[in-house]
Amino acid sequence: MLKDLDLGKTLSKEEFKKQTDALSIRIGELQRKAQDLGIPVLIAFEGWEAAGKGTHINRLLQALDPRGYNVHVAEAEDEDERLRPYWWRFWVRTPASGRFSIFDRTWCLQALQCGYGEDADPDLFDRACHEVNSFERQLTDGGTLILKFFLHISRKEQKKRFESMEANPNTAWKVSKADWQQNKHYDEWQDTLQKLLERTDTETARWNLVEAEDRRFAAVKIMTLLVEGLTDAVTLREKGIDSLAAKPVKSTLVIPETLRVSILDKADLSLKLPEPEYEKQQEHWQQRIQDMENAMFKKRVPLMVLYEGWDAAGKGGNIRRLTASMDPRGYDVIPVSAPNDIEKAHHYLWRFWNAVPKAGHISIFDRTWYGRVLVERVEGFCTEADWKRAYREINEMEEQLTHAGVGLVKFWLHIDPDEQLRRFEERKAVEWKTWKITDEDWRNREKRDLYNEAVEEMLFRTGTSYAPWTVVESNDKYYARIKTMKTVVETMEARL
Amino acid sequence: MLKDLDLGKTLSKEEFKKQTDALSIRIGELQRKAQDLGIPVLIAFEGWEAAGKGTHINRLLQALDPRGYNVHVAEAEDEDERLRPYWWRFWVRTPASGRFSIFDRTWCLQALQCGYGEDADPDLFDRACHEVNSFERQLTDGGTLILKFFLHISRKEQKKRFESMEANPNTAWKVSKADWQQNKHYDEWQDTLQKLLERTDTETARWNLVEAEDRRFAAVKIMTLLVEGLTDAVTLREKGIDSLAAKPVKSTLVIPETLRVSILDKADLSLKLPEPEYEKQQEHWQQRIQDMENAMFKKRVPLMVLYEGWDAAGKGGNIRRLTASMDPRGYDVIPVSAPNDIEKAHHYLWRFWNAVPKAGHISIFDRTWYGRVLVERVEGFCTEADWKRAYREINEMEEQLTHAGVGLVKFWLHIDPDEQLRRFEERKAVEWKTWKITDEDWRNREKRDLYNEAVEEMLFRTGTSYAPWTVVESNDKYYARIKTMKTVVETMEARL
Repeated sequence: MLKDLDLGKTLSKEEFKKQTDALSIRIGELQRKAQDLGIPVLIAFEGWEAAGKGTHINRLLQALDPRGYNVHVAEAEDEDERLRPYWWRFWVRTPASGRFSIFDRTWCLQALQCGYGEDADPDLFDRACHEVNSFERQLTDGGTLILKFFLHISRKEQKKRFESMEANPNTAWKVSKADWQQNKHYDEWQDTLQKLLERTDTETARWNLVEAEDRRFAAVKIMTLLVEGLTDAVTLREKGIDSLAAKPVKSTLVIPETLRVSILDKADLSLKLPEPEYEKQQEHWQQRIQDMENAMFKKRVPLMVLYEGWDAAGKGGNIRRLTASMDPRGYDVIPVSAPNDIEKAHHYLWRFWNAVPKAGHISIFDRTWYGRVLVERVEGFCTEADWKRAYREINEMEEQLTHAGVGLVKFWLHIDPDEQLRRFEERKAVEWKTWKITDEDWRNREKRDLYNEAVEEMLFRTGTSYAPWTVVESNDKYYARIKTMKTVVETMEARL
Repeated sequence: MLKDLDLGKTLSKEEFKKQTDALSIRIGELQRKAQDLGIPVLIAFEGWEAAGKGTHINRLLQALDPRGYNVHVAEAEDEDERLRPYWWRFWVRTPASGRFSIFDRTWCLQALQCGYGEDADPDLFDRACHEVNSFERQLTDGGTLILKFFLHISRKEQKKRFESMEANPNTAWKVSKADWQQNKHYDEWQDTLQKLLERTDTETARWNLVEAEDRRFAAVKIMTLLVEGLTDAVTLREKGIDSLAAKPVKSTLVIPETLRVSILDKADLSLKLPEPEYEKQQEHWQQRIQDMENAMFKKRVPLMVLYEGWDAAGKGGNIRRLTASMDPRGYDVIPVSAPNDIEKAHHYLWRFWNAVPKAGHISIFDRTWYGRVLVERVEGFCTEADWKRAYREINEMEEQLTHAGVGLVKFWLHIDPDEQLRRFEERKAVEWKTWKITDEDWRNREKRDLYNEAVEEMLFRTGTSYAPWTVVESNDKYYARIKTMKTVVETMEARL
């Protein structure tokens, strides 16, 4: 979810200088390669008003050979455009082989116009998003590389920027009434933008989220992602692979961890609940759960509760507390491990569809279909194309489930590496806990960076408006247990 | 379009016997191969009530090893299904590796329920179709082979079958009130089915249309298409290609021409107009065109008229008569030949988007974007994956155009090979016509069968409810000219 992003990321002046110098040279090289290989490149910037689209595009241009690109501002509709179908102006500006087309605002305009405000219309919004998908798929299938950036700032930061622009007589004219309207209705706009990102983030044209409060951080992030995208495309084309769609090769460049979209970084792991308070609250919430389970059964509303999290984050204990007061006839706990032979003979989602609860029942999953984009990705149990496709497949499934009336709660139980180590060692030391710790746990711990990347991407790409993730700060088990119970009750209430 | 299909196809008893014997053996072999290779196979039957789904499924089963398949009847919803999300019952019945799942009625049920009748809802219909697409794409991406058959019969034939079933005490119970309702509202149902076929005919899961009035013809066609689909899948898998989606290899089996869906066969090429009548009508329609051109300009409605057809079918002469009375400031004739260097550097649709008329203007295309699925397909100027993808790309473009208010008329000028030969020879013989005939025309004529296959597939896959084809019977030029003028005027009237 957009609102879960950590916007506090910054970069020092020195680091910025060093990185942009190197990145600029690399971008220039890659532009020449793309030209030689005849790759058409479409670079798109969307984002909040005053998020810095213009500034960042300008910086990018400095690195490019001016004979090789065109910049298009998609906001104002001219006479010629008004007289033609919406898609005309985007199609005629698609890049030729070897050229860059850079868009300041994009073909998502139509969707945004019917996404919020006076002309809001959910059906038109749906249609417009599907048209965005078609446009991007057609171009990608035809060999175009599409790189999309979304620049995100907070309401407060946007307000600050508007005010500072208004204070300067040279820039005051740039702030319009519509801009202030966006700031005033920031939350509603955020919901709309979130939905747009969900529906138009496909494996053929991914959104790159840029935390744009710190301009230096944002600039380096954009340039790095650009280098990554171009490098991948050039590598594929050099290998004679025309389609940039499925990216069958391993990404050749690893984005520094610090530049990744981070949702986990925002979690405050110091959150705690003292034991007496915990006991009191536990009693309260377990009673509420019991009541709500009955209410859900009577109204025939099904619920699925999904648990994912780091090893030793406390999934088992958490599930035990959640179910302590439930009627066992009304729920199932479904432990998910490596698929058996029958499951392996089917589509990876088949076993989860089989476990969909009946109306009025609750299924609690101890690990889930997200294994596809976590362990299967990191351990190479499926191909890169498989797990890249899985985000959409999973989102589609969850949308179908919620549309059919199923309540969905998704937990990521988050602990930091120190706390994990403490728990691992405790498990090793305490006799009756040793069964809980295996060599595999230690091996997974070694791969924390790879898993972290997978988790962040999962939280971002599958954190949807219809099935959001709840990151549960679990360094303190008491805090974590209460938060999950509370979240389950709230989801039940929302569904009834 | 469904309603353009030639339902008069039959097969003799002897031919039927000979073919089914051979096909049954082949299907058995292919089932064993699919089993060894671990391909999951999903075979789906949709169609009109009493079209013979049950009968044809039964016949198919005779050829299969009974240990390797399951049959599912999707019509009646049981208690267990009613309590779960719609997609549950289809997902849990998807085939395991190496197994066949055969569906009598399919996962299109939901779409059909909100497509016509009391519960009709265009938005829910759209959503349901998108869910069908997701389901099929997810399975295909996961390696499942999906073969979909739609059994088509006419209203008259359906009525005859209902009556004959009712006359027999053993089968009378099979004809329900709902069945008769379908027959009563046959045309409305046909529109709904047409829309369903359009929206769910994707490159990952194509619809196979079966003319099902003659049971022998239908049986042989179904078995032949099944053999083709299985052979392709087995060939791919034997080459180590997992995905059955894009079919990067040339189809290994050619369906006999007689079994292809035919729209052209239905055209009556003996249609004629005597010269005096032609002169009279031409005057009338040219006047109407002039009036309508003005009306369209005033209302700012754009129009695109597309001409495709056999060489020497008379496109040029036809366009000249169409435009004779038009104001030249209001229309453009756009001749389309091989792309130039600039066009080649772009997506193949780019040059056509560039030619989209302004509001109130008319663009007449002498050949069109359909070159992708005609000459480029037959001559190998693009890959098989390219032209197979193009049907959807073209449909998407045309839907976007019509949605934006553009009127679209699509003509296929049809002449038979004898008439073509006569015209070729006349061109060769008459001095002032020789420029019209080239060696290429003769070469194309040699490939009539390949072109015919491409034309039929094009007419079927891109003949949509929003942009239907008009097949113009052009053996007689007079008749053809009047029909195109009339069609253009009618489209203009419908748009205004």
